[in-house]
Amino acid sequence: MESAIGIDFGGTTIKSGLVRGGAIVARGPVIDTQTCGGPDQIIDALVGVVEALSSGRPVAVGVGLPGTVDAEAGMVNELTNVAGWRSIPLRALLEKRTGLVATVENDANAMAYGEWRYGAAQNGRYVVCVTLGTGVGGGLILDGRLYRGAQMGAGEIGHMSINHRGVRGHYGNLGALEKYVGNHQIAERAQALYAQAGHTRSIEECAPAQLSANAASGDTVALGLWETVGEEIGSALCSVIWLLNPDTIVIGGGVARAGALLFDPIQRTIQQQTGFVFHDRLRVVAATLGNDAGIIGNASLALEAAARARKS
Amino acid sequence: MESAIGIDFGGTTIKSGLVRGGAIVARGPVIDTQTCGGPDQIIDALVGVVEALSSGRPVAVGVGLPGTVDAEAGMVNELTNVAGWRSIPLRALLEKRTGLVATVENDANAMAYGEWRYGAAQNGRYVVCVTLGTGVGGGLILDGRLYRGAQMGAGEIGHMSINHRGVRGHYGNLGALEKYVGNHQIAERAQALYAQAGHTRSIEECAPAQLSANAASGDTVALGLWETVGEEIGSALCSVIWLLNPDTIVIGGGVARAGALLFDPIQRTIQQQTGFVFHDRLRVVAATLGNDAGIIGNASLALEAAARARKS
Repeated sequence: MESAIGIDFGGTTIKSGLVRGGAIVARGPVIDTQTCGGPDQIIDALVGVVEALSSGRPVAVGVGLPGTVDAEAGMVNELTNVAGWRSIPLRALLEKRTGLVATVENDANAMAYGEWRYGAAQNGRYVVCVTLGTGVGGGLILDGRLYRGAQMGAGEIGHMSINHRGVRGHYGNLGALEKYVGNHQIAERAQALYAQAGHTRSIEECAPAQLSANAASGDTVALGLWETVGEEIGSALCSVIWLLNPDTIVIGGGVARAGALLFDPIQRTIQQQTGFVFHDRLRVVAATLGNDAGIIGNASLALEAAARARKS
Repeated sequence: MESAIGIDFGGTTIKSGLVRGGAIVARGPVIDTQTCGGPDQIIDALVGVVEALSSGRPVAVGVGLPGTVDAEAGMVNELTNVAGWRSIPLRALLEKRTGLVATVENDANAMAYGEWRYGAAQNGRYVVCVTLGTGVGGGLILDGRLYRGAQMGAGEIGHMSINHRGVRGHYGNLGALEKYVGNHQIAERAQALYAQAGHTRSIEECAPAQLSANAASGDTVALGLWETVGEEIGSALCSVIWLLNPDTIVIGGGVARAGALLFDPIQRTIQQQTGFVFHDRLRVVAATLGNDAGIIGNASLALEAAARARKS
């Protein structure tokens, strides 16, 4: 069985692994994104990752990055929280320096691809993946193919509006989902609700993990907030369902660790607010690959590119 | 050049035409859907339409219907406002009785296909079509193919939510776009706004066409309502844009005849509430095929099915 290297290039750290049959069989050195240097130094480090994992005889390397990536042209157009990355032909640079087939992809797309190929969405053909964290990201598999859109920007579920006169988001967009259910927003809302109930809590005491623990012990503020957050995410997903009629929705990211506290109101909202044929056979499931989804997805995309390259 | 028959099976009338090169070269008899009879009588009438247009030597016939249609299996699963249509294998019945290649499709999908092949969206590859009328319908062309979704239900833009705590819609869905901007809803809102301003108007005097005329002569109530309606439609389209990153949005239907009164606030909302790469090269255009989009789209789908049948 062939293996490939998957690299999950994040704003904080760059993690990697040698992937075979959808499983990580070896891990590369972790790179600190912010202290590594500019694009030249980071590209050197990426080449170092490939060398460190070369004993596994990889045939390809796939990199997922946080920003606008032109997967077809192999270009990194711009990264969100990493300085200096603009119009860099990363695929060509990596192919030249490593001798392997390389791919570049948006990070959320790569995670969705990983969950589709080897994770929670394996039997789906119309798959929506949502990642709930500091922001809300997403990736789409439509009719059995990764869907990127006209400018490779598709899947921004976190910017979809749940209220056309709601809170203003980063792009002037009113009511953007992530302005309600991003992890900082959840903590701030909890803090305000506790204050209303006469309890002073630090923002750390209001983090989603703590709120889950509180809800488990019957805290009505935490229980109520998870209901509300679930309904808000559910509302955005209902709009996605009416538009795309998916067969599988995968939900991952740190906030999704709330489990049933979050999934129950999401499921209920979908049952109550979509037509029968839209929800009857729809699976709404938790992501199963966790933090490895990006590594596995990028390696899978790279392996498939290598197979296509041999055919043509 | 080959020709095909397109049939636009509506809840009120069934219209048809012989289509060649994307143009209607002859029209079939108009059938009154509600008085024609049950499925058997209507199918007889559809066969009659094919016979009436047979002198044009069509090679295929395509029918678009208002309801859930399984285009791949050739089945009409259920129609929305036409009694007795449940699980009818219309494609096979028509092929047997006419000797032509036949296709069946959801009406909104067929209209989108017509606008994509021969109308306003001809150069698009990622196309969202919206029809604004009594309800709000939609069809999607994604990555150069008609997109139907897992249960062939995709494109229901009118059921997408613009407010997660908004007005309750037909499926229990809160804030459904068409509950704000359907033509009856527009008229009711106008009537209420005129009443607030001290003017008594009948509901007929508040129909969208009349509101456009009023706005053209400076009526501030009508002007304001078109702004609001445009912002609401714009908000739903922003969500579609963030999710799908289309290159073309086509807007048609009776309500779209308001023209710039409606398109200006839609365009402005999209400019203000989506990221630059999402709107910079996005075309938002009026449908150009009008009531013929369905006939032309169905004929196009049928012609392409005939071409595929010859190849295989």
